[in-house]
Amino acid sequence: MTQTPFIGKLAIFLSFFACVGCLSSATARGTVLRFRSGSPTFKIVLFADLHFGEDAWTDWGPLQDANSSRVMSTVLDLENPDLVVYLGDVITANNIPTANASLYWDQAISPTKARGIPWASVFGNHDDAPFSWPIDWFSATGIPPHRCRDDATSCSGLEEECEFRGTQRLDLMKNEVKNRKLSQSRNGPKHLWPSVSNYYVQISPFFDDCQSPVMNLYFLDSGGGSYPEVISSAQVEWFRHTAQQINPNSSIPEIVFWHIPSGAYEQVAPSCIQKPCVGSINMEKVAAQQAEFGIMSLLQQRPSVKAVFVGHNHGLDWCCPHSPHNATNKLWLCFARHSGYGGYGNWARGARIIQITHQPFSLKSWIRMEDAQLHSPITFTS
Amino acid sequence: MTQTPFIGKLAIFLSFFACVGCLSSATARGTVLRFRSGSPTFKIVLFADLHFGEDAWTDWGPLQDANSSRVMSTVLDLENPDLVVYLGDVITANNIPTANASLYWDQAISPTKARGIPWASVFGNHDDAPFSWPIDWFSATGIPPHRCRDDATSCSGLEEECEFRGTQRLDLMKNEVKNRKLSQSRNGPKHLWPSVSNYYVQISPFFDDCQSPVMNLYFLDSGGGSYPEVISSAQVEWFRHTAQQINPNSSIPEIVFWHIPSGAYEQVAPSCIQKPCVGSINMEKVAAQQAEFGIMSLLQQRPSVKAVFVGHNHGLDWCCPHSPHNATNKLWLCFARHSGYGGYGNWARGARIIQITHQPFSLKSWIRMEDAQLHSPITFTS
Repeated sequence: MTQTPFIGKLAIFLSFFACVGCLSSATARGTVLRFRSGSPTFKIVLFADLHFGEDAWTDWGPLQDANSSRVMSTVLDLENPDLVVYLGDVITANNIPTANASLYWDQAISPTKARGIPWASVFGNHDDAPFSWPIDWFSATGIPPHRCRDDATSCSGLEEECEFRGTQRLDLMKNEVKNRKLSQSRNGPKHLWPSVSNYYVQISPFFDDCQSPVMNLYFLDSGGGSYPEVISSAQVEWFRHTAQQINPNSSIPEIVFWHIPSGAYEQVAPSCIQKPCVGSINMEKVAAQQAEFGIMSLLQQRPSVKAVFVGHNHGLDWCCPHSPHNATNKLWLCFARHSGYGGYGNWARGARIIQITHQPFSLKSWIRMEDAQLHSPITFTS
Repeated sequence: MTQTPFIGKLAIFLSFFACVGCLSSATARGTVLRFRSGSPTFKIVLFADLHFGEDAWTDWGPLQDANSSRVMSTVLDLENPDLVVYLGDVITANNIPTANASLYWDQAISPTKARGIPWASVFGNHDDAPFSWPIDWFSATGIPPHRCRDDATSCSGLEEECEFRGTQRLDLMKNEVKNRKLSQSRNGPKHLWPSVSNYYVQISPFFDDCQSPVMNLYFLDSGGGSYPEVISSAQVEWFRHTAQQINPNSSIPEIVFWHIPSGAYEQVAPSCIQKPCVGSINMEKVAAQQAEFGIMSLLQQRPSVKAVFVGHNHGLDWCCPHSPHNATNKLWLCFARHSGYGGYGNWARGARIIQITHQPFSLKSWIRMEDAQLHSPITFTS
């Protein structure tokens, strides 16, 4: 039996740690997820506009949260995804009279976490909106019993600790990423604050190639709630710099997630959904961000960017091409599907699904409804 | 020399403490102030809508605060009052990017405190409004340097401590009443929160009668900022109960202070200021509270209530009778005078003065301008 020399042992030892690093590598700016062993596809479920925590002092508030949990459980069991994206407005903070709204955030994450599925989240305009006191609480009926602190079960009077200021983005995220085994979310670089959910996730093949992800997912905080509904110049610059670092030749396909549609969505919005657009509901006008500081022109310049996915407009679920007559630019602009019983709208609930296939690469999407039906299938690129 | 018996000594001892109690008596709900020795009058200056802390990141913000301080110093030196009432919108919290806005509150109080004059304050709709991020801070110019913490001189980056959530009413008041020697303000009963500045001040003769105040001053928080612009049912009930306790026979004249005019102001608003109204500017419509839960009908029922004083409308400085054709009800509704260079409006700055005379009782008011001129004198009752 030949003894392995010391240098050889060291090389084996180091390569073992290098590979472990590839399996679960994570930085403050991004993480890596992998295709399952033997699976040619990687599937993502988008839950948009769940709006947990509305009207907790009535019966229908908690009931609609239970209904939203049922939607998520149904979709997760039908689709068995590799990743769930919570696409903002996870909670309705302006309706939550507690010192810590993470309670409701955790409820919304629960169906995914319980199934051991990784998830990633971005903030919407309602997630840290300041609490809006209902005016009828100041009439003779008075302020209803409410929860003041995490460690108090309930209290009928206002305490000094019961500040009603809402839970800020940083605190919501700090609570979420306690579970680093499953949560891919990050607080993003400090210089981008107050916009917080700015990070990336790389989807790599199963354990056979550390260097070539199949797809890069970027997450951006499109503001709203505690500050204006914008993607800032600093975020645009961060995207440019990050994409240059992790995808210098634009050789890896990319998709992007944020909550509030950009102005480009208004421009491509169809009067009725027909080819090349795909979708099923077109019930309202696009409610776009307040201003734009360059994100769309940057995305257009990168041929690797295949699609943007947003929520916010509960009554829209279409995908349309950004420039249908430009053969070299195949960027698609997509809405998710209203998943929550919280928030406005009475249409049937569902979730947009994204499927990435490796070797050969393809990117597809469809919508899965609560009653198990599928509709609006689309292939972005083949 | 005759020795004083023990019981006699005890009586002197107790009466000494009783009188000290009268001189400076204060409860969680109210305080007592006294006429100066030999003075037949007690004078109150109202500073309304100072709006300290606007645009701290430019030159004109700090400059207008300096101008507001000059207005206050001029009026205080000309009038030499016994009490100053800060009638809300002391600061513009929605424009203050610091973790603790009490810095600006203290600046606004400073001219009064420096002269050793007692003061009392009520909250306006801007005092704890959430910080509104200027949208141009998200463009390429970026977020300007700002103060993050009390103990930090400045920082150019956002820190976790730098939460931009504004300073709540309770915290602002907690800071103000550190100076209990001069501040008459109180946080009010807990069951009235989130409305905070609910308390009373009794004006008594100089040290000769503990039991009969010359006038009772009531202060109410009319909301706005962090919650709706209302005087709640609970506040109305507190007023009813308190007035019944400290003035059971309505024998003591009463005046009331809050920030946002009630709907009654809209009803009496003159198209042009003429008798019986008195005033000098009538530049805008009354911007009244969002809803009313009974405060005005309660005040009307009490013949001891002589006048209500509000701020909020910078372009109004009139007094009008609530019911000019009702001989038995002499309730007056008055605006203060815009005192601050902060907030909207370019009219000359000044302050409403209230003068209480004892034996015989009278209640008068006028407006003192920054250039020392007096105008709009009115006698409410003689």
